[in-house]
Formats: sequence, C-alpha cells, structure tokens
Amino acid sequence: MKEPFLFKLTWPEVGEYLKKNEIVLFPTGSTEQHGKHLAEDNDAFTALEISKRVAEKTGVLVAPVMPFGYSPHHMGFPGSITLSFETLVAVYKEVCRSLMKHGFKKIVIMNAHGGNQNAISETLRQLKEETGTTVYSLMVFPSSRGFGAKAVKETIETSGGHADELETSVVLYLGQRVLSEKAEKGVPPASLSDFLRKYTGEVSTARDFHEITVSGSLGDPTLASKEKGRKLVEAVVDEIAAFIEDLKKQ
Amino acid sequence: MKEPFLFKLTWPEVGEYLKKNEIVLFPTGSTEQHGKHLAEDNDAFTALEISKRVAEKTGVLVAPVMPFGYSPHHMGFPGSITLSFETLVAVYKEVCRSLMKHGFKKIVIMNAHGGNQNAISETLRQLKEETGTTVYSLMVFPSSRGFGAKAVKETIETSGGHADELETSVVLYLGQRVLSEKAEKGVPPASLSDFLRKYTGEVSTARDFHEITVSGSLGDPTLASKEKGRKLVEAVVDEIAAFIEDLKKQ
Amino acid sequence: MKEPFLFKLTWPEVGEYLKKNEIVLFPTGSTEQHGKHLAEDNDAFTALEISKRVAEKTGVLVAPVMPFGYSPHHMGFPGSITLSFETLVAVYKEVCRSLMKHGFKKIVIMNAHGGNQNAISETLRQLKEETGTTVYSLMVFPSSRGFGAKAVKETIETSGGHADELETSVVLYLGQRVLSEKAEKGVPPASLSDFLRKYTGEVSTARDFHEITVSGSLGDPTLASKEKGRKLVEAVVDEIAAFIEDLKKQ
Amino acid sequence: MKEPFLFKLTWPEVGEYLKKNEIVLFPTGSTEQHGKHLAEDNDAFTALEISKRVAEKTGVLVAPVMPFGYSPHHMGFPGSITLSFETLVAVYKEVCRSLMKHGFKKIVIMNAHGGNQNAISETLRQLKEETGTTVYSLMVFPSSRGFGAKAVKETIETSGGHADELETSVVLYLGQRVLSEKAEKGVPPASLSDFLRKYTGEVSTARDFHEITVSGSLGDPTLASKEKGRKLVEAVVDEIAAFIEDLKKQ
Amino acid sequence: MKEPFLFKLTWPEVGEYLKKNEIVLFPTGSTEQHGKHLAEDNDAFTALEISKRVAEKTGVLVAPVMPFGYSPHHMGFPGSITLSFETLVAVYKEVCRSLMKHGFKKIVIMNAHGGNQNAISETLRQLKEETGTTVYSLMVFPSSRGFGAKAVKETIETSGGHADELETSVVLYLGQRVLSEKAEKGVPPASLSDFLRKYTGEVSTARDFHEITVSGSLGDPTLASKEKGRKLVEAVVDEIAAFIEDLKKQ
Amino acid sequence: MKEPFLFKLTWPEVGEYLKKNEIVLFPTGSTEQHGKHLAEDNDAFTALEISKRVAEKTGVLVAPVMPFGYSPHHMGFPGSITLSFETLVAVYKEVCRSLMKHGFKKIVIMNAHGGNQNAISETLRQLKEETGTTVYSLMVFPSSRGFGAKAVKETIETSGGHADELETSVVLYLGQRVLSEKAEKGVPPASLSDFLRKYTGEVSTARDFHEITVSGSLGDPTLASKEKGRKLVEAVVDEIAAFIEDLKKQ
Repeated sequence: MKEPFLFKLTWPEVGEYLKKNEIVLFPTGSTEQHGKHLAEDNDAFTALEISKRVAEKTGVLVAPVMPFGYSPHHMGFPGSITLSFETLVAVYKEVCRSLMKHGFKKIVIMNAHGGNQNAISETLRQLKEETGTTVYSLMVFPSSRGFGAKAVKETIETSGGHADELETSVVLYLGQRVLSEKAEKGVPPASLSDFLRKYTGEVSTARDFHEITVSGSLGDPTLASKEKGRKLVEAVVDEIAAFIEDLKKQ
Repeated sequence: MKEPFLFKLTWPEVGEYLKKNEIVLFPTGSTEQHGKHLAEDNDAFTALEISKRVAEKTGVLVAPVMPFGYSPHHMGFPGSITLSFETLVAVYKEVCRSLMKHGFKKIVIMNAHGGNQNAISETLRQLKEETGTTVYSLMVFPSSRGFGAKAVKETIETSGGHADELETSVVLYLGQRVLSEKAEKGVPPASLSDFLRKYTGEVSTARDFHEITVSGSLGDPTLASKEKGRKLVEAVVDEIAAFIEDLKKQ
Repeated sequence: MKEPFLFKLTWPEVGEYLKKNEIVLFPTGSTEQHGKHLAEDNDAFTALEISKRVAEKTGVLVAPVMPFGYSPHHMGFPGSITLSFETLVAVYKEVCRSLMKHGFKKIVIMNAHGGNQNAISETLRQLKEETGTTVYSLMVFPSSRGFGAKAVKETIETSGGHADELETSVVLYLGQRVLSEKAEKGVPPASLSDFLRKYTGEVSTARDFHEITVSGSLGDPTLASKEKGRKLVEAVVDEIAAFIEDLKKQ
Repeated sequence: MKEPFLFKLTWPEVGEYLKKNEIVLFPTGSTEQHGKHLAEDNDAFTALEISKRVAEKTGVLVAPVMPFGYSPHHMGFPGSITLSFETLVAVYKEVCRSLMKHGFKKIVIMNAHGGNQNAISETLRQLKEETGTTVYSLMVFPSSRGFGAKAVKETIETSGGHADELETSVVLYLGQRVLSEKAEKGVPPASLSDFLRKYTGEVSTARDFHEITVSGSLGDPTLASKEKGRKLVEAVVDEIAAFIEDLKKQ
Repeated sequence: MKEPFLFKLTWPEVGEYLKKNEIVLFPTGSTEQHGKHLAEDNDAFTALEISKRVAEKTGVLVAPVMPFGYSPHHMGFPGSITLSFETLVAVYKEVCRSLMKHGFKKIVIMNAHGGNQNAISETLRQLKEETGTTVYSLMVFPSSRGFGAKAVKETIETSGGHADELETSVVLYLGQRVLSEKAEKGVPPASLSDFLRKYTGEVSTARDFHEITVSGSLGDPTLASKEKGRKLVEAVVDEIAAFIEDLKKQ
Repeated sequence: MKEPFLFKLTWPEVGEYLKKNEIVLFPTGSTEQHGKHLAEDNDAFTALEISKRVAEKTGVLVAPVMPFGYSPHHMGFPGSITLSFETLVAVYKEVCRSLMKHGFKKIVIMNAHGGNQNAISETLRQLKEETGTTVYSLMVFPSSRGFGAKAVKETIETSGGHADELETSVVLYLGQRVLSEKAEKGVPPASLSDFLRKYTGEVSTARDFHEITVSGSLGDPTLASKEKGRKLVEAVVDEIAAFIEDLKKQ
C-alpha cells in the first residue's frame, strides 16, 4: 500500500504525486477535554485516522494534522489548549497557501472539531477572495446533517454533542485510548440557572463547558460500542471517499 | 410613550435611565441585496424595528443600529456593502465596551442577519474572556429554532433563507419599502454545477449568492403577505419581550 | 421625488443608477453627548439629513450613515459610544471599497463630527495608495473655513465648537429632538487648572470634554434659533450641491 | 554647560537626573523633500536643534530625534521616506512607554513636521487611555497659532506651509545645509485642475505634493533670511522654555 | 510504563499530574523538505521522539508537537509548508498560555528546527513581559554548542546543517522513514554567484535553500549510520533528562 | 569631499545620484545602556559613523540612522528605550520600501546592535517575498565571524559581548563620549542562580541584562584603547568598502 501521508514522503516523491494529482486532505482537530474517558487529542486523532482511511481508498495525500483548535469553552478542564480565532484562521490560511504554492489546487479540510467550524468558514472565504481558489471542508465525524447520516440514524440511540455515544463509538473502533469504565453521562452542575436553561436555543451566550456539564461529556457515552463505531466509520469513510472520487473529476 | 431610542436622549436622560436599569438592546443588521423586491437595508431596518417594539413593551433602551454587516457572499449584486470579519468583531466589541463603561451590564445584541452570527459569536466569547461579562444575542427574525418558532410553523408555507416568504412577510408588516410585483422565486443559475448541488449539506465552500440564485432570493417571496407578517412580528416581539422581563430579574 | 437613499433601493435599482451615475454620498456621524439639550445621535442625524437634502437637489444616492465615530473624549458623559481610530478607518475603507466594487467611482464622505476628521484623512490616503482612486470628504456642518462660511458669518453670534449656537440652530431646523429649555452655556469645571488654560492653542494634550465643560457644550447654545438654522442649512446644502454638480463633470 | 542629550549620558547619569527631574523632550521630525534648496532631514534637524536650545535654557533632557515621519504625500520627490500611520503611532507610543518606565512622568513631544500631527494626536490619546499619563506635544516651528506667533507676525511677509520663507529662515539661522541659490517659489504644475483649485478648503482629498507644487515648496523661500530666522528661533525657544519652567511646577 | 503524552490522557488524569508536577515539554518542529532521502516531517518527528524519551526517563508530560514551523526558505521544494513569523509566535504563545492556565509553571519548548529559533526567542521574551514566567527552550538535535556536544564531536565526521550526516543518523536510529539510497551530498546549483559565496558569513540576505543546494541537503548524509544515531540520541536524551531533573528542583 | 548623507541632500541632488548609483546604506542602532562608561546612543552612533566612513570611501549615500532598536533586555537600566519586534520590523520594511520606490535597488542595512538581528532577518525575508528584491545586512562592529575578524583576533584580548573591550575601543577612536574612569568589568549579581549559570548555552530563556551584569557591561572594557579602536575601525571600514565596491558590479 502506498504511503498516504504527505509528511512521510520526500520532496521528490511529493513532486511526483503533483504531476498526476492535485488533491490533498488537511486534517484539523483540537487538544481539549473529552469527558472522563477519552484522551485530550480525540479530535486530532480522529481527523487524522479518518483522513488516512479515505486516502488509502482514493490514493490522495494527507497533510499533517493541526493538533490545536478553537477551544476556549473547554479551558475549565485541565489539559485543554486553545488558539485564538484570529491565530487559527492564520494557521489554516498559511497552510493552505503553502499547499497551493506547490500546485495542490483542491484542498479538503477534514475537520473533527465543531468549535473550529467558524474559523474554517472564515478561512474558506478569505482564501476565495484572495486567491480565487475554492477550498472544501467537511466534518469527519458522522452526523445527521453530513456524511454518514444514514448510519447515525441506524446506529446511535442518544443525542449529545461532545464525548458522547457517537464520538466514543467512533474512536473505540479507530483504536483511541478509551477509559470505558470512566465514561459518564453529561449532567449539568447544580449551579446552572433556570434562566440559562430556559432560553437555550433562542438566546446565545459564550457558555463554557464546565458551566453545563460536570463530566465534560454532552450526551451519554456509556452506550458506545466498538461495533457501532465500525458501522459509522465504514459509512463515513465510504461516503467521503465517493466525494473525493467525484472531486478528482472536477 | 417614553422614547425607546438611547440615541434620541440627552446624556442626563441616559444617566437617569442607568440609575434604574442596566439593559440595552443593540440592533445589528446589514446593507446587502435582498432580492428584486426588498430594499438593501432590510436587515438593519428589521433589527431596529423589532428592537423598538420590544423596547416599547419593556421600557428598555435601544442603541443605534449597526447598518453594515458581514456580506461578502452578496457582493455580486449592486449596492451590497460588506465589512471584514475582523472589523465587524472590532465594531461590536467596541460598541459593547462603550456601553459597559457607562454601566449597561446586560447587553442584548438584536441581530437580523444570519451572516453576522459568527462575528457575534466571537464577540460574545472575547467580551466574556476580557471583561467577565455575559453578553446576550438573539435573532430578531422568527425561525423554527428560535423565538417565534410556533408562529413560523403555523404561518409559513415554504422554506427559504433569504428574501423569502418569511422575511418578506415580516417587513411588509413592519412598513419596509417592498416592490411586491418584482418578487421572484430564487432559482439557481444554469451555471451551478451538479457537483456543488450534490454535496450541499455535506461539504462547505465559500459559496456566493450570485452562484446559487438569479434573483437574489432563496425561497419563494411571492407567497408573502402582510397578515402573515403581523402574526410573526407579534409572536416574536412578545417572546423576546418575555425574555427581557426575565433578564431584568437576573 | 426619487428615492435618495441607496439603502432603500433594490439591487436592480442600484444597478440602473450605476449605468448613468458614479457618485455616492457616504454620511458619517457619531453617537456621543451633545450637551444637556441635544440627542446623542446629533452628528449621525445631521450627516444623514444634509446628505438627503443634497441628494434630492442633485439626484445622487446616499449610503447608510455610519452612526458610530471617534469619541473617546466624550466617554465621561453617559451614552457616548466610541470606536478606536484603527477600527473606524477600517470601517470607512471597507465601506468605500464595497462601493467602488460596484462601480461608484466618486465617493463623497459627508462628515458631521470633527473627531472623525483624522480617521477620514487617513482613509482617503490609504484608499488613494491602494486603489488609485480619489475619495472626497467634506464637513456637513457649516463653518467659517468650509461650505456655508458666508452664512455662518452673517448668522452666528458666538463661537463654540460643540453643541453650540451653530450646531443647535442647524438641528432645530432639521427637526432633531431638542430640549431647548435644558440648553446651557459651556463652562469649565472649577477643577480645570490655570496651567492647561494658559497653553491651550500652543500645547496639545488628550483632553477629555468632562475636563473642560460641565454641560457638555462648548459655546452658547441658548442663542440658537430655528431661523438661524434655516439660513445655515439652505446655504450649506446649496453650496455642497453646487460642488456635486461640478463633480459630475469631472 | 551640562549635556542636554539623554542619549549622550551613561545609565547612571540618567538615573541621577531622574532623582530630581521628570521632564524629557522627545523630538520628532521627518525625512522628506524640502524644496530645491533644503536638506531632506530639515524637520528632524529642526526638532533636535530647537529641543537642544530649550534644554540648554531649562536643564531638561532631550531623547533621540525620530528621523522618520508620516510623509506619503512627499513620495513623488526622490529621497523622501515615509512610515505608515500605524507604525508611526506604534513608535511614538513605545518610545514614550520606555521613557515612562524609567520614571519620566512629563514627556513633551517636540514636533517639527505637520504631517505627524494626526499620529501624535492619536498617540497622546492612546497613552492617556492606557496609562493615565498626560503627554504633551507642541510644534517647534513658530506659527501664527502656536509658540512664536508674535515673532511670525512681525517677521514673515508671505504665507506658505512647506520649505517656505518661515521654515527657510529658521534653518538658515540654525545652521542647516541650505542651497539658497536654488530656492524657488512654489507654483502648481500646469496639470492641476481648476476643479481641485476651486474647492481647496471646503473639500479634502489625499493630495500629493507633486500634484500641487513643482519645486516642492509651498510659499516663497526666496524671501528668507538668517536674521528673520534669528528672531523666530529666539522667540520660539524663549516661549517653549517658559512653558517647560511652568511644567516643572505642575 | 506511564503514558508520557499529555494528549493521550483524560482531563482528570492531567489534573492528577498537576497536583505533583508543573513541568511540561512542548515539542516544535516543521514540515519541510529534508533532502532526497528524509521525510518532510523530519523535525516534527524528531521533536516528538526525543521529547518522549526524555519524558519516559523523567516522568514529565509531553504536549502535542506543533507540526508546522517557519520554513519560507524551503518553499522552493514540493511539500514544504510554512507559517509566517507572526502567526508562529502567536501559536507558541497561545499554547504556552493555555498550559500556564492549568498550572504548568515550567514549560520547556523542545525544538527540532533551527528556523523556528527566532520565533521561539520572541515568544520567550513576550511571555516573560506579559506573565512574568520564564519559559525554557532547547534544541533536541545534538549540536556542538548545545546538549550532546561531546557525542557530536566523537561521532560526526562532517559539518552540514540540514538533512546532513548528523540529522540523518539521529532519525535512522529514531525509526524515521529514510530512503538511504537516495541520500545525496548538498552541492550548490551552478547558478550560485561567486559574489554570494564570497560574503557568506559577513553579509546576510534572505537566501532560499534551492539557491544553495540542489538536493536540499546541506552537508553529507551519505556518511550517516544508525549506530552514530544511537550514540547521539542516547547522549542528548541523557543530558536533557539531567536538565529536567535539575529543573524539578527549582 | 562629497556629502555622504542622503538626508543632507536636496531632492534634486538625490535624483542626480540615482541616475548613476542604486546603493544606499541604512544604519540601524539602538538607544540603551552601555555600561557605566558609554553613552546610551552608542550603537546608533557607531552605525552612523562607520556608515559615513564607508560612504566616503565608496561614494555611496547613507540614509538617516534608526536610533531606536530592540532592547527589552536592557530596560532594567535607566534611559534604555525599546521598540517591540513587530514595530521594528515595520519601521525597517517601510524605510526600505520608501528607498526602493525612488530606485534604490541595493540597500545595505548597517547594523550596530546584536539585538536587532532577528528583526532585520525577518525584514530581509519579508522584503524578498513581497518585492523580490534582495536586501543586504551586515554588522558594523568587527567580530570574529564577520568583517574585521582578523583585526579582532590581533587586537582584542578578552571576550565579552556588550560595552566590552572591543566596543569601547571602537568608539574611543570614533570620538564617542566615553567616561573611561567609570569603565567596569561585567560581573553577575549575587542573585544569579547556579542553575541558570549551568545551562547557559544549552538552554535559552528571556534573560535580562540586569540579571547577569551589575555594571551593564559583558566583558572587560578597562582594556580598551583608542589605538585598538583605530586598527579595528580601519579594518572593518576597508573590508565593508571592498564589499560595496563588489556590490556595485552586481
């Protein structure tokens, strides 16, 4: 099997690839608390693992994963690391511009952290204005609104949002370090006011995770299983791979 | 009736208000194309009009509306004006900081333009980190996920997103300049590729409005009516006013 | 009468205008204390009102007024809002660049707040360097050194500088909310040192308004009248309109 | 005579000075064309020379002169150097903050270049907001509105503005390199339009010097004399020294 | 053996660690050409591998490696990625600040890329000014002026600087992907002028690697061996571990 | 002898020079403590004096010296002034860009302060990326690794680094204000920990000068002499002049 990682190639090998292909996957994650049972690099790990699987199916290259993301709302939990919005956009833009300089014309940002989405959205916009190039982004975690939607519907019993049934299942299958016995449902601290509860959905504030969950999870990770993860990962990898095949033809 | 607009008061009057109340509404809109039938200031107009109605019901003050927003995706249509993300966040932050300096401790950003949401979200986060103050934001347009959800369900027949049945109904009732005879359903230009159509939802790109709609509308504004607008506006104003009353007690 | 406000047009209407005309007026004001008798939006209000009158005489369009300006020196009075110099220049530049993008080649910044002048000056310079385009700016308030100089000489009895006889007369005529009975001459607080008084003119410092005037006025607004305002407004509108007619021919 | 230049002292000598005195003069100039007869460093030279004379009379110290200023409007003439507005403000602020750190509580910016005024004004404001310290600035060139006004009235026959009768007289006396035989009245190029001429005063644009003067002078330097310069310099030095003596007592 | 990677722990585990220890290693590398025989991630790989070995000996934690560095001089070779100086300093500062927030008081930047040194130096300075905290940095590659100096002297026959005998030996031992048969001595292209050659050392310019080496190497990687690498790695790991033990006692 | 200083010429004289020559020297120094015996402007003074001597030998022009540099590590001593890294790079870039605009294609930064090197290095890089122009920089102080290496070896008995035997000798000859009787060897304060001493060389931190030297000197200035300075200055001027002659031919 061919080496899927751009960063494990020598420069002449990258040069050879560019003669035939202009696609590159750029995985983006975060280093932040993922409940009492998942490692802090969970999003960076997943972004890279899914990207690798897609690359192996499609023959495209994967750039290094950006391990730090936008995580100010997780800073109440030890070990979380955050970049500012401005710095994160700068990193994304400069990595993409470097790739474009060598001739990668179709860059796909493979994102595993919801908190990065605004920064990625701003990156896509600025790169389009400045270079005229369309950059693509997608979520590597399956979701009901993205790739893997059908598998999510068939497999996942509970909703959540962070270090939950879905996310835990996916990384159990991908081989992440998981302390399953520590997994704990996300319940809000007693201090969460009725006022904030009442207007969730209608009113936005800069809410921190430690204000809304004691364990760090949102959802119920105790329902996760490796088998659920297998179904989800296979679905999402297949669907993203199909997109990459279509993208080759554009 | 008391003057609801902070900007129509003298400084001693503002000083008097601050002795008893610490809430202020800050309306944010945009100046951008709104189809062939709505004025370019539609979002700024709506943000100010809804804010005024809420203020009249609750006795709080309304700051000047910020007329320019984040609209790079509308620049393909004449008359649209856009600020950069960075500049818009700076404006929002500096207006809020000015208000805080005088003693307004509860600021509610009354937003009418979806495109501003990321900048507002970043503003709320930065203000919380820098000042410890929670700033609130909400959408003044009724939507199925925010204030006025029930009314939307009962009143609006079609989905859309921009200069559509919902938005047009609301501003017909609010007294905006509307060229109803020019209203036109949003249809994509022939040039929109099957590829982009296929992955809408799963894959994000920095898409411009002129790439996806000929008239500038997304949805069907021809179904709009003033009566629908009345129901929507009354619902959204009542619900936001109830939130403001709750906020007074926090 | 034709609609003078760009922001009340639809995009096809703006497109039509641009086929025949490349002038647009961009009013800039502030939200800041204006003594005990004038509303905080006095400069934004005036910028828009004068622009509208000039537009009606000349058939050109008026962009939305920028309601926030450079007012750090007024922050000692409740309700004043200020942007930083850097942010204000960014807003002015980005609005002008948006207008240029659609084909407005002759932009006239219609400013009503002296405190904005340095930011406007820097804007004009940067836009010239970056785009090669000459942008124009003028003061909408009549002054002895600008438009309306003759009318000022004939009408105004006292000098001032802020919320004074001249400014109050102008807005009385324009229909601003004025609490005439609250108008109060500007007198410095007892705390103003002889030292600072002595070197006014020769030595500059970052002086705040609350350090030099108790009421917030500089000058004597009690001498203002609507009739004085009428003469001033008519003069300044006529003279600016003449400039616009000349500009059309360039 | 004591060494007036801070930069010619050792650090223990500066330490000694600070035990008794907290005033420092910070000269600011520019490097830009000054007509066909004056050296490019004319403003930097004058700022330093006047500062030195004031320092010698009052016993205060002089910081190094900042030789580069805001001169984009002179870039049409060889040898002119300009900083951006933003960079210049940063330099001024960082020099003042460094001086404050050592205990200089009364900083007087001794400016010789009109083009720097906006940047200095912004510097004074930002330093006041950030540190609470009042920084002073004044023009070292005599003018009808500043120090030396009486001497200007009695000595100078023509008005101007740049490399003119006044400026040339001052530097003839101060010992600048002057090519008197090359001095040339400032006349506009044939290309200057009647339109721009007509609205000078009422309308601002970012005008470049090469658009309005062929020689680079504004005014008539041929009327300059060393004797006029002597009167002007003596007046301005005496008056600024009196201000410094007053400042010591604050 | 305990998990050395902070990013493979859960947040409660990081919290436990912080009760007893305040040291964290932050590895910084780059993604850039490393001759015809080494992978592009060579510096990121080495930074992480050496950090891991030091951590295993000393029981401290390792943060995620920053895979992108300052590499504009390598952009002439396919696959190289560079951040700007400003962005890189921002990333380093924000990661360190995040770690400090959780209680890591002794941060050691473990750098493997010479090109990052200026950015790290600026980071250390800014963090000291802003937080009062001393951050440490060191090179993980052995060098004659740093850790491992004795081993370098005893083991390495040729000098170089990039993808050379030393660097290749180290990563052969660490298990990097190495295409030994492609290793090629660094020779300058024929186009390198005698002028630039002559003043190397005395005169600095922004020289690019493709201007001075055809293969991308500086030095002679053909002399590298795994055994040399073993000696170097063991020496450098031991010496850095001794430093960490000393640091624990400070 | 021709005037070597660009800033003492009129603009027509600079224009004449540019018809035949495209080289300009840009001296960069600092204002910072230089031990108990040297003036604070020592680096600015030296940069200008060496540049002048080189210019006189080669007929090229010298721009004004930038008197402020990067000196945060000297701020513990009265009179030191520092710019931030970012501001200093901006100044260097903008001065170079101004010079380029007039046709100076070969700019040589003549630096006298080691602390400026990182900022200069970043300046050279950014100017190359943005303009394609190679800018040169060199140290005007002789050193064992730069110009004057042989003379250093033959003349200087002790090593140092700041306000030492070498630096003091050079400026004694150049005519700087030197309080020779105050010269004092650099010894560290009692407070310097063994830990920091031990890892100097291997580990970097943001160390301040007042943490490592009581007098402000590093090295032994008591061994300095004017005669040593003469040999050093003559050597370094000759060698730099030879480089400039070579540069003319490129």
